[in-house]
Amino acid sequence: MAKQIKYGRYLHGGDYNPEQWLDRPDILQKDIEYFKKAHINTVSVGIFSWAVLEPEEGKYNFDWLEEIINNLYKEGIHTILATPSGARPKWMADKYEEVLRMDPDRTRRFFGGRHNHCFTSPVYREKVHAIDKKLAERFGKHPAVMLWHISNEFGGECHCPLCQAKFREWLKEKYGTIENLNKRWCTTFWSHIYNSFDQIESPSTKGENELHALKLDWKRFVTDQTIDFIKNEVDAIREGGSELPVTANLMYDYDGLDYKKFKDVLDIVSWDNYPGWHKKEEYVTAVDVAMQHDLMRSIKKAPFLLMESCPSATNWKPINKLKKPGMLLAGSLQAVAHGSDSVLYFQLRQSQGASEKFHGAVIDHYGKDDTRVFREVTEVGEVLEQIQETVGTTMRSQAAVLYDRENDWAIADVQGPRNVDMHYRENVQKNYRALREQGLNVDIIAMEHDLAGYKVLAAPMAYMFRDGYEEKLRTYVENGGTLVLSYWSGLVDGTDKCFLDGTPYGLMDVTGIRSAEIDALYDWEENHAIPEKGSHLGISNVYTCKNLCELVEVSDAEVLMRYGEDFYQGYPVLTHKTFGKGHVYYVCADMELGFYQDFYGRVAAEAGLKSQVEFIPEGVSVTVRESDDTEYLFIQNYARKPQTVAVPAEYELLYGTESEVMAPLQTRILKKRK
Amino acid sequence: MAKQIKYGRYLHGGDYNPEQWLDRPDILQKDIEYFKKAHINTVSVGIFSWAVLEPEEGKYNFDWLEEIINNLYKEGIHTILATPSGARPKWMADKYEEVLRMDPDRTRRFFGGRHNHCFTSPVYREKVHAIDKKLAERFGKHPAVMLWHISNEFGGECHCPLCQAKFREWLKEKYGTIENLNKRWCTTFWSHIYNSFDQIESPSTKGENELHALKLDWKRFVTDQTIDFIKNEVDAIREGGSELPVTANLMYDYDGLDYKKFKDVLDIVSWDNYPGWHKKEEYVTAVDVAMQHDLMRSIKKAPFLLMESCPSATNWKPINKLKKPGMLLAGSLQAVAHGSDSVLYFQLRQSQGASEKFHGAVIDHYGKDDTRVFREVTEVGEVLEQIQETVGTTMRSQAAVLYDRENDWAIADVQGPRNVDMHYRENVQKNYRALREQGLNVDIIAMEHDLAGYKVLAAPMAYMFRDGYEEKLRTYVENGGTLVLSYWSGLVDGTDKCFLDGTPYGLMDVTGIRSAEIDALYDWEENHAIPEKGSHLGISNVYTCKNLCELVEVSDAEVLMRYGEDFYQGYPVLTHKTFGKGHVYYVCADMELGFYQDFYGRVAAEAGLKSQVEFIPEGVSVTVRESDDTEYLFIQNYARKPQTVAVPAEYELLYGTESEVMAPLQTRILKKRK
Amino acid sequence: MAKQIKYGRYLHGGDYNPEQWLDRPDILQKDIEYFKKAHINTVSVGIFSWAVLEPEEGKYNFDWLEEIINNLYKEGIHTILATPSGARPKWMADKYEEVLRMDPDRTRRFFGGRHNHCFTSPVYREKVHAIDKKLAERFGKHPAVMLWHISNEFGGECHCPLCQAKFREWLKEKYGTIENLNKRWCTTFWSHIYNSFDQIESPSTKGENELHALKLDWKRFVTDQTIDFIKNEVDAIREGGSELPVTANLMYDYDGLDYKKFKDVLDIVSWDNYPGWHKKEEYVTAVDVAMQHDLMRSIKKAPFLLMESCPSATNWKPINKLKKPGMLLAGSLQAVAHGSDSVLYFQLRQSQGASEKFHGAVIDHYGKDDTRVFREVTEVGEVLEQIQETVGTTMRSQAAVLYDRENDWAIADVQGPRNVDMHYRENVQKNYRALREQGLNVDIIAMEHDLAGYKVLAAPMAYMFRDGYEEKLRTYVENGGTLVLSYWSGLVDGTDKCFLDGTPYGLMDVTGIRSAEIDALYDWEENHAIPEKGSHLGISNVYTCKNLCELVEVSDAEVLMRYGEDFYQGYPVLTHKTFGKGHVYYVCADMELGFYQDFYGRVAAEAGLKSQVEFIPEGVSVTVRESDDTEYLFIQNYARKPQTVAVPAEYELLYGTESEVMAPLQTRILKKRK
Ligand SMILES: [Zn+2]
Ligand SMILES: [Zn+2]
Ligand SMILES: [Zn+2]
Repeated sequence: MAKQIKYGRYLHGGDYNPEQWLDRPDILQKDIEYFKKAHINTVSVGIFSWAVLEPEEGKYNFDWLEEIINNLYKEGIHTILATPSGARPKWMADKYEEVLRMDPDRTRRFFGGRHNHCFTSPVYREKVHAIDKKLAERFGKHPAVMLWHISNEFGGECHCPLCQAKFREWLKEKYGTIENLNKRWCTTFWSHIYNSFDQIESPSTKGENELHALKLDWKRFVTDQTIDFIKNEVDAIREGGSELPVTANLMYDYDGLDYKKFKDVLDIVSWDNYPGWHKKEEYVTAVDVAMQHDLMRSIKKAPFLLMESCPSATNWKPINKLKKPGMLLAGSLQAVAHGSDSVLYFQLRQSQGASEKFHGAVIDHYGKDDTRVFREVTEVGEVLEQIQETVGTTMRSQAAVLYDRENDWAIADVQGPRNVDMHYRENVQKNYRALREQGLNVDIIAMEHDLAGYKVLAAPMAYMFRDGYEEKLRTYVENGGTLVLSYWSGLVDGTDKCFLDGTPYGLMDVTGIRSAEIDALYDWEENHAIPEKGSHLGISNVYTCKNLCELVEVSDAEVLMRYGEDFYQGYPVLTHKTFGKGHVYYVCADMELGFYQDFYGRVAAEAGLKSQVEFIPEGVSVTVRESDDTEYLFIQNYARKPQTVAVPAEYELLYGTESEVMAPLQTRILKKRK
Repeated sequence: MAKQIKYGRYLHGGDYNPEQWLDRPDILQKDIEYFKKAHINTVSVGIFSWAVLEPEEGKYNFDWLEEIINNLYKEGIHTILATPSGARPKWMADKYEEVLRMDPDRTRRFFGGRHNHCFTSPVYREKVHAIDKKLAERFGKHPAVMLWHISNEFGGECHCPLCQAKFREWLKEKYGTIENLNKRWCTTFWSHIYNSFDQIESPSTKGENELHALKLDWKRFVTDQTIDFIKNEVDAIREGGSELPVTANLMYDYDGLDYKKFKDVLDIVSWDNYPGWHKKEEYVTAVDVAMQHDLMRSIKKAPFLLMESCPSATNWKPINKLKKPGMLLAGSLQAVAHGSDSVLYFQLRQSQGASEKFHGAVIDHYGKDDTRVFREVTEVGEVLEQIQETVGTTMRSQAAVLYDRENDWAIADVQGPRNVDMHYRENVQKNYRALREQGLNVDIIAMEHDLAGYKVLAAPMAYMFRDGYEEKLRTYVENGGTLVLSYWSGLVDGTDKCFLDGTPYGLMDVTGIRSAEIDALYDWEENHAIPEKGSHLGISNVYTCKNLCELVEVSDAEVLMRYGEDFYQGYPVLTHKTFGKGHVYYVCADMELGFYQDFYGRVAAEAGLKSQVEFIPEGVSVTVRESDDTEYLFIQNYARKPQTVAVPAEYELLYGTESEVMAPLQTRILKKRK
Repeated sequence: MAKQIKYGRYLHGGDYNPEQWLDRPDILQKDIEYFKKAHINTVSVGIFSWAVLEPEEGKYNFDWLEEIINNLYKEGIHTILATPSGARPKWMADKYEEVLRMDPDRTRRFFGGRHNHCFTSPVYREKVHAIDKKLAERFGKHPAVMLWHISNEFGGECHCPLCQAKFREWLKEKYGTIENLNKRWCTTFWSHIYNSFDQIESPSTKGENELHALKLDWKRFVTDQTIDFIKNEVDAIREGGSELPVTANLMYDYDGLDYKKFKDVLDIVSWDNYPGWHKKEEYVTAVDVAMQHDLMRSIKKAPFLLMESCPSATNWKPINKLKKPGMLLAGSLQAVAHGSDSVLYFQLRQSQGASEKFHGAVIDHYGKDDTRVFREVTEVGEVLEQIQETVGTTMRSQAAVLYDRENDWAIADVQGPRNVDMHYRENVQKNYRALREQGLNVDIIAMEHDLAGYKVLAAPMAYMFRDGYEEKLRTYVENGGTLVLSYWSGLVDGTDKCFLDGTPYGLMDVTGIRSAEIDALYDWEENHAIPEKGSHLGISNVYTCKNLCELVEVSDAEVLMRYGEDFYQGYPVLTHKTFGKGHVYYVCADMELGFYQDFYGRVAAEAGLKSQVEFIPEGVSVTVRESDDTEYLFIQNYARKPQTVAVPAEYELLYGTESEVMAPLQTRILKKRK
């Protein structure tokens, strides 16, 4: 069972690199003064400090770190301590070449950058284990240290012989015999039959790049091997005598790893959030960010930590805009509204050189506290203290959207109707957004998640039915759930091998339809969904569809909408069937957002889902966190104009204005006893 | 002399991969049932089957193949048997690295994909020879087997040391001495003089990439070495005792090989046709496809085979659209109308996994015959039986367009006026289309083709005059031919070395002009051709020109049109001269299509060319196939509206409606005794 | 001190490759005849002739060259003699692999192309030294030879072990200790601390690519090593007994080398000018070219040579347009107007093959003199003789624009507000253009240039204050200069390390402002600068700004303009302060050109700068060259319509029409006694 922390207060602070300033005690001293002023109570240290912690092989230098931790602790500031494996010292790369990655073309990378170790290398694992254990021995029981921050933003992959060998072992364990692998992978195609596991090589554009099952398993292996690497780190920490919980900072919609598998290796999920505010309308960005918060929260169905965010402008995007006044506070409270127990920044003090020297920071090169950014950070700290009672509260969702990374990988590699873009993620987000706009908490889940408890499940483009997912869906509907399935669902099994005898596999009776063909549209083409008068749900508007139009044959379902054009004019676009105690809707085409907004309003009503807030104006976000006895209602206005949000009288104001008229970027938090 | 087949019926069927279903005898049985229902009489098997045919080195496994062939034959279905060299088993790549290609950077590719062998490797040639011979011994006299399908879609190149050595031999044979090569290649430029043939390396962006003659000769070598590889395969088949004809499936406008050189090594030309219908207007696509059919037919001036086509949507284009109803039949009959004796598909049954699993097939994963695609395939089979008497008939063309691959290579590499795009192919196609729209059969020829028999020859952008092509053109005109030459013609010899003393080389007296300068236009610029009143041909419209405007000096020609703008306003755009018994037109600029439509209407009339059909509405295609005693008129309507095509009374209907009003995508086939 | 030539006449001629025609004495003979007809008095020979000069190792073949030089000299044509190091013979690359470069991925390039030697290789340096010395011995005192042309268009870099070692030496010399390097480079970031100089590797996308200081020093090293290579060549020439001056032909805005460092190694600066006329309006192109002329002249503050230019269309641009009539003359005289003592072409005779065979030439493949290009070249020759008295005259500028290559490198690599484009060069050019449009000579200078003598200095985006540049600026203003500084100035020192405590570093008191934040705008965004009524300078128009908007805090300056929109509406955009005897303007945003035109009109007036011409119409260029006793006024009209340029009565016409109405592309040259 995962270790937990009762923080008692929102964590406010972030990444801090005092090792860059050891020759400037005046600055280190000033930092503490500023931290206190800005209500900063937590720092993350040690990320990328290896070269200072172990300047020569086996020669450790931890005293400076202890002094920093002590000095901060004296002033009430706690430490999240990082393991330094995200970057290694030059001496190690020079002495042990194997710690560096190999590219898909089997050439080794040189020293440089970060996040680029071989995750299999015994030498690297040994070196990491040694320093992690030492750190745990020294700091694992220090009262200031509250949490382990394992490495940094895990990602990428290595194609070295060590990793190839490990991949073969992984495959052997999965498939047992090479005959089984050949059969599951369909290697007869293009004469790619393997005689033994030893013959298998990682995918590469310089070699095998079109065997989907190989590529999919390689991606799975990369996740598993990354987790194995993390376990090695956690083991070291435990061997060092520390029982503190561990986290790793995940990334925005990162498709190199399957985060759902991090559920058990991490005690706490945390992630780094760098939205591009002020590019599109803020409420569009807010939806996008919200989906990530909900995805992170859903991994463990528990509060998470916002591990990094930018106090001002980033420095690594094509265009790095300043956050306009109020944006920092709104964005910080958005994390909290979706289940975060922290607001942490990268970075507390700007580094003086190298690639991130212009990344926004609480304290910049100017070095004083009379800046706009410092004032806004301080305000965040004050608000977090004001709403302290909400920390640690949880969220319950009755609606969920399936967004499965393995499914995403398979679709991205599909060689099917649209190779330019299948628009999987956009489709998921349209479903998510329309559900959220009903004022509902929404989970973002994978195929492994338990479906009990959800009243509505959107499963758009569920291309891959893994491990009998069709049975899970069938049971869900039989038991009374509402399932919204779509085109491009149930085509392949877990090795990307096509189901025979009709799709959506195993659910043709449940949906009452069979998918016959799928048409791809050029970007300039569109079709329309025409409502069938007097049909179930009562949709009466015409909506546009683009990109993909599936042609289905109906065996036993009611047609609610039909195509308006092309040779399939009159074919179904939306069908409905009751099955068991539940409902199944099948969406045949890539519909515009307006359809989903209309559709989910009706579906939610049918399923008995109801928001705490009656009417939700455009751009307004509503979420609910709750403790055993209290419900907390978070309302934020991301529209560029004031919006009025009427709240039931039983709610009491915890934070924000009394008025129900909310200015742009304003937040109100209310509560009521349950 | 090439071996021939009297098929007796149109071949209908295509690629079939039973080795993917050996564990599913029920499916293999069902396939035969469906084939018969769809009037399928031919299958291509063995493509990519090497790993099943020779699972371990020297251990052959042919029984399954014989059983398949026998079972099909019992039901009247013949077999085209492929050699498996398009992909090799993993064990071979592991044991003999040299069978894999090297990239231009001299690194070897890994195992994977297909079509990627070294075509020089003695080991690979030996392994291919062995299995081909074995296959020939076993199946070469089997009554079901009618044709050898050598490998698959030859293409690509290898830069390994074996290939480098072979290239040097090839050069030595061509040039005799290194001094001669240096002189022909102009290696004095940038000090690239070679002291011996041993010093020569294949072109590479990592090395020599700007010596045009080297690059051109390398491309020629690649074609020659590919053909030499094919010869090795054919030799093996003959050694195995089979005297059946051979083909290889060529590709759409493939510029990696010079297909005209395949004339002698193949008994029958075949090609794979995957047009992107429904992207532009269908008649635009139809013109593009027609040009390829005519190119393939012109290689041997004989009927060819449509070896692959898609029964539905492909899966490898950016956007893979469904074929709308009627498109499959129209596209299939288009091949026949241009000289094909077959309609074959890739693929008869969809594979269950790997990269082509979603490519359209006669029988898809659903696996039954109650699909739209199956019904349309069946209709094609029925129509082919209905028009069976036309099989094996030939085509005669009195007009030809020069589209020479070596010329294309040289222009693509030219470093001349427009490096973004010289628009060679577009220009060729404008000439072709305008001639076709006169209702004429048109050949697409190379510089090697005999010109006797053509009344009109379009030779646009004939940049390279190879092996005295200027003399061939001179003789052609002297003997009464009409030559349409254009800007950017006759500048270099066969090693891309500039002619001195004026261009078009050797034809300044024939054309009556000399090219002085050539202006390149930005994409947003244009000029105009203004007709000279009362001049020859009587053109009276103004036409736009773009991209390239040549400035010529007239010595002895009539100016028919002049530039309307820029400093060369008033300079000639179109000239005419009679020479010997013929006519020469010189087009100075990249004219719009409308010009060519107008121009070739007048030129065809002058040259006495006449279509069987008086008036040809927009979008309508007319071709003629003929036997010794009968002429078959194929009319297709590719417009998106009905068109009326009046046909002389002496024609009798073979296929299609009685009415002369043709619906979109409709075909009529008529015949008359000669 | 630099060696000088008194040419006595404008050099007219250019690159000549007789070694390509040694088997055609008739052509070589004809060339001389044509040269004389075209008033060509100078040829550059020997560029890329190594393979002919040393066909086998150690076997020299110079006789042909002597004969060519003699034959030309007999006819009054002088020779610029090139060293052949720009390309090497194949035998050398085969025998000594080290002469070829290695790419950043540490793989070696193959033989081919040009300009691709390792500049460190002892073998290459030895081979170059040997042939250069031999050439100097043979031709260094030949009366026809006037100048050494070292190699050709130096550029590029090498990552071989020899270069890596040299780079480490270079760093050791610069930083002394590894501790100092670590501190200056901020290597603590991401654990990149070096334990010794031996650990340092050149930057590579396959390794370290984000340590700005490393990348900056690598670029500096590349320049220094290139110059060291040149010194090796000059040494050889001197050892060979030649005391003739040396030049190297530089390139348009080439950012691979820091040309300001070539000041001392070259006796004369020369460059190759290939503008894309007729793409935009000619006057826009003319400004762009003028800036390069001024940059080249400013390197040594002395007349330079136009070493290459195209007599007609180039062949290496995407679109290679013909020069319209008059363009060649105008462009040639533009070079002269900006300080060139030559008009030289690439190339005199077109080569017959290889990659530049279609590059424009005085004599083309046609090979005769009755061409438009030949006539226009002849006209240039005639005009140069007509204005012969102006040769060798110099230019004085009272205005300068800072355009520093090291600053440019740092900005390009910055990872700051706009990674898509910081628009440094565009900003420099807007400042330059607005100053030039006041009719002023303008220098383009680096931070090393002496500022004495300038009345106005524009220093836009002076991001890097190197070696105390802030002190240089302070002194300049104190002494009465007008400084125009802008946003993004004074942020880092010479190792790209951020200054602490506020920016613009060291000038907060001089400017009276501190930069607080900088906002990046998307390409579709803009803000406006609103004039402050009644403020200094009296600007009254509103101007648009884009891309970057700095937010400054004013301590002691007058605000002349303020932002019109966004949350920083009302913040300053333009400030002014008098400091010492001078003025400082600070421009906070990337303003449109119109602002600079308005602004510099006022600033120039305030600073007492005055053009020889009262009113300068749009598109007209005015420069002044002068001898000890005479001032020469060059006026060119690059507008597409006639412009009237009134000239004070004291000027006497040297070249051009009497009328003050100037047709497009027309030039007038006037003179007066000083
Ligand atoms: Zn590895
Ligand atoms: Zn090879
Ligand atoms: Zn080197």
